[in-house]
Amino acid sequence: MEKGIPIALEQQRSRAPQGRRLATALSALFFVALVHCVHNSWVKADYDVLRTPKHCELLSPISANEYEARRTSLARTLVELNASAYMAEPGASSLFYGNFSQANWGHSERPLLLIITPHQNGDTIEAKVSVLTPAFEATRAKMLPVSAKGVTFIEWAEESNPYEHAMSILSATPGSVFVDGQTRNFIVDGLQAAHPQVTVSSAPYEIKRLRERKSPAEIELMKCANEATVLSIRAVRKQLHFGIHESTAGALMKSALSSAGLKDGGCLVLFGENAALPHGAGTDRTLGKNDFALFDCTAGLHGYKSDVTRTVALDGSEIPDDHLEIWRQVHTAQTEAIATAHAGTIAAQVDKAARASLNNSKHFTHRLGHGIGLEVHEDPYLNGGSKTVLETGHAFSNEPGIYIEGKVGVRLEDCFYINENGNAIFLTAGVGGKARSPWDP
Amino acid sequence: MEKGIPIALEQQRSRAPQGRRLATALSALFFVALVHCVHNSWVKADYDVLRTPKHCELLSPISANEYEARRTSLARTLVELNASAYMAEPGASSLFYGNFSQANWGHSERPLLLIITPHQNGDTIEAKVSVLTPAFEATRAKMLPVSAKGVTFIEWAEESNPYEHAMSILSATPGSVFVDGQTRNFIVDGLQAAHPQVTVSSAPYEIKRLRERKSPAEIELMKCANEATVLSIRAVRKQLHFGIHESTAGALMKSALSSAGLKDGGCLVLFGENAALPHGAGTDRTLGKNDFALFDCTAGLHGYKSDVTRTVALDGSEIPDDHLEIWRQVHTAQTEAIATAHAGTIAAQVDKAARASLNNSKHFTHRLGHGIGLEVHEDPYLNGGSKTVLETGHAFSNEPGIYIEGKVGVRLEDCFYINENGNAIFLTAGVGGKARSPWDP
Repeated sequence: MEKGIPIALEQQRSRAPQGRRLATALSALFFVALVHCVHNSWVKADYDVLRTPKHCELLSPISANEYEARRTSLARTLVELNASAYMAEPGASSLFYGNFSQANWGHSERPLLLIITPHQNGDTIEAKVSVLTPAFEATRAKMLPVSAKGVTFIEWAEESNPYEHAMSILSATPGSVFVDGQTRNFIVDGLQAAHPQVTVSSAPYEIKRLRERKSPAEIELMKCANEATVLSIRAVRKQLHFGIHESTAGALMKSALSSAGLKDGGCLVLFGENAALPHGAGTDRTLGKNDFALFDCTAGLHGYKSDVTRTVALDGSEIPDDHLEIWRQVHTAQTEAIATAHAGTIAAQVDKAARASLNNSKHFTHRLGHGIGLEVHEDPYLNGGSKTVLETGHAFSNEPGIYIEGKVGVRLEDCFYINENGNAIFLTAGVGGKARSPWDP
Repeated sequence: MEKGIPIALEQQRSRAPQGRRLATALSALFFVALVHCVHNSWVKADYDVLRTPKHCELLSPISANEYEARRTSLARTLVELNASAYMAEPGASSLFYGNFSQANWGHSERPLLLIITPHQNGDTIEAKVSVLTPAFEATRAKMLPVSAKGVTFIEWAEESNPYEHAMSILSATPGSVFVDGQTRNFIVDGLQAAHPQVTVSSAPYEIKRLRERKSPAEIELMKCANEATVLSIRAVRKQLHFGIHESTAGALMKSALSSAGLKDGGCLVLFGENAALPHGAGTDRTLGKNDFALFDCTAGLHGYKSDVTRTVALDGSEIPDDHLEIWRQVHTAQTEAIATAHAGTIAAQVDKAARASLNNSKHFTHRLGHGIGLEVHEDPYLNGGSKTVLETGHAFSNEPGIYIEGKVGVRLEDCFYINENGNAIFLTAGVGGKARSPWDP
């Protein structure tokens, strides 16, 4: 009982309201005492998939105030850029500014758009929220959990041009219109054609960076999601046996992530040489004594994503020495990379540090990492071509790997963020951070 | 046993290879005789969900020759438009031209593109197929079921600009580049920035119409998918009981569609007043004696989609007279609409015919229909603003509805196509076409 649960309890405790803290502390003491008494049996039971604690249940979703602050920042930026509107289809950006995504409203040929327009109110700039909706679905659109007051619903009838409706709310002498980069091109075309005098284009970096740098509330959610994901992988590793199929292990992981209170969880599970294709081989291989098992898992907590990869071995595994050596090299690369990362570092340098640690191996075939937040992969990226300067609030995956096709694949992934002091901290630190060995992930 | 299965067998027979036809005919005779003997019990068993026949198993997917012909048509059109390439992300258009879609390769921040370029070979124009792929995933990309010979894989390394790689294959003096309208805007931006001298824009109508008009092979697949969907709804209606939940009925339908040999099947299932919101209310209501049950179902056959809606009643239902009257009105509107449709009709006229039949009711809140093929909803559309002229090979849904919020919703939907004589034929005609009553859907 060296790790894991006491730390998890510590995490929960530090977030509990003052009143509950004493009770929780006492329970924790009792718990630790109990654990010391019935040591071994408890360790096993505690790691049971179905008992994975609801590690994050004390955390709240993003507050209404934070949503409003995001929109105000956006409105100010739009004014600075002489722009008159920002528009986004349901997706990560509409989730960031409006609290709804494709989970609430799937994409179809009928556009539904979140529209934010800046309005001067004396000295202050306020953001106004509109939703463009098919008229016949307006009742359903009004059920969207938009976190904003006084939303205007712009309804377009089936025989009308939805883009003319969207552009009609612009002022008489409008500035440019920025759309989220994920918007499907026929929508951008439609908006542009509806108002040829206005330039419709993807939101520039000034707007994108508003979502890239995470707030303390966002970081708390991301920490907990990543911690619970690590705990789930550790729990499932103890349930594996030789001969298990990748798909069965994947189902165990899905169940563990769900038991941990995370949403939409899932893992890429690859055994032995299958792990040499970073995104999978499509077979359903069984696990042998000489095989590593690679788990690349993601799950959500109030919209925020985790991303953790562990390459593990079973008690009783006989992993070839050269494969263990690869594991150690990848592990060292992870350490070297985070040592390089702090506020002011250029993203490409972090990627290069990991690569140098691996002697620029041709078997480290992908970038070191990606931004993470409401999307598992999002801007900015840690690759050799990225000129982004790391800042407080940035969060990235750190996931070096070595892939030798037909033989072996090892990847280790923990996400980190840049804290208020400019230092890089693993989002998994609360449960011990990085893996220690294939048997102690 | 007036309809359904004998017709279904007839359908299968007409598609069977010559050799099997006699055997099938004899079995059919035997079957019909047997059915006449044990009439009632057979009807019940035959409609059992798990026994829904694999109605379409004799049909083949689109042939390699047809894929090549599609690309050749595209290449010729590109030359006519002075364009040098067509590019599409995984989706319906990449499925149409290259036999792979998002089912094979999900969208991520790393672009993977199907690229078709025209090449003059003497007097003929040939299409060359390239796939832009992340280098580290090239092995997986080469496993894509691209139906083409001599595909070039353009690999981009993580630190490089993928769009420069894509645009590098254009000739020294390239014409414009057309992208599929579904392409995400950041990709269009990337391509445009990589080669500012070339115009990158959404494919115009000349290209879109190549996919809009279906070939005989496509129509055969769509007929069978729609027939099997109707058979499944009929089977499930017999299994419903008062008190069943919408979700349970939905699960039965999913199972029936799968048993029928269709893929990715599913239905919107709405009981009573829930059906008054055309795309659902999000509750899980139970079915009462006075309720209609609305099933709006879609499923796939070799990529081609069905779309069928039935508003049904159970044996023993007591549907209020005014609701039955609405059913009859909607049923008549479906008839009036298809009577208007033939080659040369303007799409808006078909919508207007249905609307006129319903006295321009404000309760018919949506367009009459949509194009259908590799997407459930695709261009062109049957709405009051659509100027598309109907042509041979066009296929549409015909789905009038009346929705009175808080009370009742009725929608009836059968898809039709324009045949080689210019006539509109229901894709469900092989199993009796339109519903006859809420009890005989």
